[in-house]
Amino acid sequence: MKWIRDKWAPNGAAINVNVVKQLESYHSKFQKIDVYETANLGKMLLLDDIIMLTEYDEFAYHEMIAHPSLHVHPKVNKVLVIGGGDGGTVREILKHSDIREVHVCEIDEEVISVCKKHFPTLSSGFDNPKVKIFFEDGAVFVKERKNEYDLIIVDSSDPIGPAQVLFQEQFYRNMFDSLKYDGITVTQSEGMFFGREIIRKLFTFNRNIFPILYYYFTMVPTYPSGTIGFSFCSKKHHPVNDIYTKKGITTRYYTPDIHKASFILPKFMEDIV
Amino acid sequence: MKWIRDKWAPNGAAINVNVVKQLESYHSKFQKIDVYETANLGKMLLLDDIIMLTEYDEFAYHEMIAHPSLHVHPKVNKVLVIGGGDGGTVREILKHSDIREVHVCEIDEEVISVCKKHFPTLSSGFDNPKVKIFFEDGAVFVKERKNEYDLIIVDSSDPIGPAQVLFQEQFYRNMFDSLKYDGITVTQSEGMFFGREIIRKLFTFNRNIFPILYYYFTMVPTYPSGTIGFSFCSKKHHPVNDIYTKKGITTRYYTPDIHKASFILPKFMEDIV
Repeated sequence: MKWIRDKWAPNGAAINVNVVKQLESYHSKFQKIDVYETANLGKMLLLDDIIMLTEYDEFAYHEMIAHPSLHVHPKVNKVLVIGGGDGGTVREILKHSDIREVHVCEIDEEVISVCKKHFPTLSSGFDNPKVKIFFEDGAVFVKERKNEYDLIIVDSSDPIGPAQVLFQEQFYRNMFDSLKYDGITVTQSEGMFFGREIIRKLFTFNRNIFPILYYYFTMVPTYPSGTIGFSFCSKKHHPVNDIYTKKGITTRYYTPDIHKASFILPKFMEDIV
Repeated sequence: MKWIRDKWAPNGAAINVNVVKQLESYHSKFQKIDVYETANLGKMLLLDDIIMLTEYDEFAYHEMIAHPSLHVHPKVNKVLVIGGGDGGTVREILKHSDIREVHVCEIDEEVISVCKKHFPTLSSGFDNPKVKIFFEDGAVFVKERKNEYDLIIVDSSDPIGPAQVLFQEQFYRNMFDSLKYDGITVTQSEGMFFGREIIRKLFTFNRNIFPILYYYFTMVPTYPSGTIGFSFCSKKHHPVNDIYTKKGITTRYYTPDIHKASFILPKFMEDIV
């Protein structure tokens, strides 16, 4: 047994995970890709030595990046996922059977192939006929699409490496234009403890772009600090006042009550969001 | 700079913290005690190589172990803290100026002296004339006191080493008898991800002891999984329906809204608590 230390160690705190076997380790055009069999947490994916997911706790992330907006927007026909090459977010989106089209824009084709091989419970949605995959830069992709999506989910890695551009003001302005008149975008926006300055920056410029803007969180044990959050950027629908009940969505983390509670933040977040 | 790995690594996941200097390292009669200066998280206390607190995030733990019950019970005169040798819990309790007496039962005198030396922002409450410290075994202490306390807070370490007895049914039965007719006890009850089996055990026997029993959580980045929770065991008062407003309590994590939200749990906890 061996310890793998997550390279994303904000504030000098890192996650270590016990692994029993290395299953993949190679470089794609964009990044280093590793897959391990862990001792207790199932398989684990790392990009550039940063933990992206373990099979043990990925549900807490993927359910919460996907289901809140899908329980708020009354009619989502067409969704865009930027990043999300492991497939977990698409899997959750497809639980909403009324959705007609899901576009996935993942910059790195290798992430999708490695996840199809090692994480079939996440990536199976990629074979659904509603899903179309584009191997392109998400920042360029949204620039070219106007008034097209009901929902955009940015399921990105951290703001170092290829995902850096996805934390910029111009990207959010372009997403605003890619959304229909009542569209929503939900973006991976780091954790409220160690990512406070990133959140502050995102919220400072987003206040000038989206009329409805909130931060909400989920808990993921294998991410630094154990919590990660999302920006809920909306043109019309309110994330908590506009929740409606949907039947037949099976989840392990999400409930309508958790949906509401996840927008309630500790006092230290009050001056940030 | 050096990495210190937390020895409490449930499910093969451990926290690593960057440290710059070791300030203390010795054995008391009960356990190994270490204090480090960390790179980014202030000073850090470890007992038996398990992280107890960092100055950076201890507020999220101590506020949430103390304030919910103190905003529910309408008249707390006398409180018992079992464990809590760092002083953080007592500091939060003393923010409620109507409290008359705080007993602290800490088995290890050395924990209190090392915290008085290195963590004055936590331990300052020990000098308050309302506070009386007993260096005794908490399990024995409650057995000898009947119908005495309005509130008992068990601020213990994990169920290995000296704190093991504090996770047993008999201890909870004795606490029930030490409480007045409308008393509450709040106990450190591990995190909902990695501590699920411990929580299940606690809740199975506590359902036969306390008529009102709930689990609630807080987020502490330097604890495994980033979240830790508490059993709210009450004879009369409900943890959410009976909240009342108190003025002049300064906090960084606790708010009345967070109080309510912290009792709302992910779906996977539904069959456990």
